Amino acid sequence: MKMSAIKVDNGVNVEALLGAREALTAAPEAAAFKWRATCSWVNGTHSRSSVEKFYGLGAEQSHKTEFNYDADHPAIFASEDKGATPVEYVLVGLASCLTAGIAAVAQNRQIQLRSVKATLEAGMDLQGILGIDSDVRNGFDGIKVTFDIDADATQDEIAALVAQSQKRSAVFDIVTNPTNVSVEIR
Amino acid sequence: MKMSAIKVDNGVNVEALLGAREALTAAPEAAAFKWRATCSWVNGTHSRSSVEKFYGLGAEQSHKTEFNYDADHPAIFASEDKGATPVEYVLVGLASCLTAGIAAVAQNRQIQLRSVKATLEAGMDLQGILGIDSDVRNGFDGIKVTFDIDADATQDEIAALVAQSQKRSAVFDIVTNPTNVSVEIR
Repeated sequence: MKMSAIKVDNGVNVEALLGAREALTAAPEAAAFKWRATCSWVNGTHSRSSVEKFYGLGAEQSHKTEFNYDADHPAIFASEDKGATPVEYVLVGLASCLTAGIAAVAQNRQIQLRSVKATLEAGMDLQGILGIDSDVRNGFDGIKVTFDIDADATQDEIAALVAQSQKRSAVFDIVTNPTNVSVEIR
Repeated sequence: MKMSAIKVDNGVNVEALLGAREALTAAPEAAAFKWRATCSWVNGTHSRSSVEKFYGLGAEQSHKTEFNYDADHPAIFASEDKGATPVEYVLVGLASCLTAGIAAVAQNRQIQLRSVKATLEAGMDLQGILGIDSDVRNGFDGIKVTFDIDADATQDEIAALVAQSQKRSAVFDIVTNPTNVSVEIR
């Protein structure tokens, strides 16, 4: 039940996003973005990745600061466990993409969110990456995302929020559809 | 050129990995892993994800500590830029997966690594996620990974290392092939 007397504020600047959509409709070349990361090997399976610069709106852009991420394998694989595993980073990307989308769509639909929590679980048969059975894929055999959402909305409205977030999620698309990856050595 | 007088040490316990492969060949049910993440919405497009527990080797497992990751959109999208974007987390996952694989394969092949650096760039046309053009996909239009590797090996040996890492990479598989994602609301 929406109470129109109370201003809906999910912290998303929908006016700016709608303005961006209008501007990029008029100048579609500005919508061509390039996202970047670098990764330096530290030791063993431990690496440190950095994210800072990207390209978009026709110019080089930068985050406010450089973000650094340690990745590693856990101790049960005889590693140092200095960070999440690479596959867990993919889950973080998927979870945060769907969650941000829910907030943006909710704001656009004038639905006040109180809390949103996503719980993700992805099965993976290690016979793939260990080369035990070539019929087993290396990656996840599937990902299950469960949302707990408390919002000033009906169950149907909440379901529609989640569906629209999924429909427009970059990471959902990357994971569910094939993306070409070229690997080169300099 | 390998110098057999010098012990190769990339920090990877290959004996443990080969032992795991042997053990999991004998008991394939132990190879069934479940990776998990939770994500809580903070405000706007800002969320915080946590990674700690997982399942494998027939039992509940845990990282040494809980790892937390803030994700957000950058300031040019009228967001607070409190962390990397969700799509950049996917790049971190891919980069760290391929890099760890190179270290493990190099150790197994007795190749001493001195440095490994991956540089990733992924194009994305924002007309997709903004709903401007439904023929444009939401995700990346492709990812380019460039490795700079300094190792005690020939160029051909280095190329073979990278190829083998790619062949066994979980995240490379997740990104290049379709993975089913089910989204539910509790």
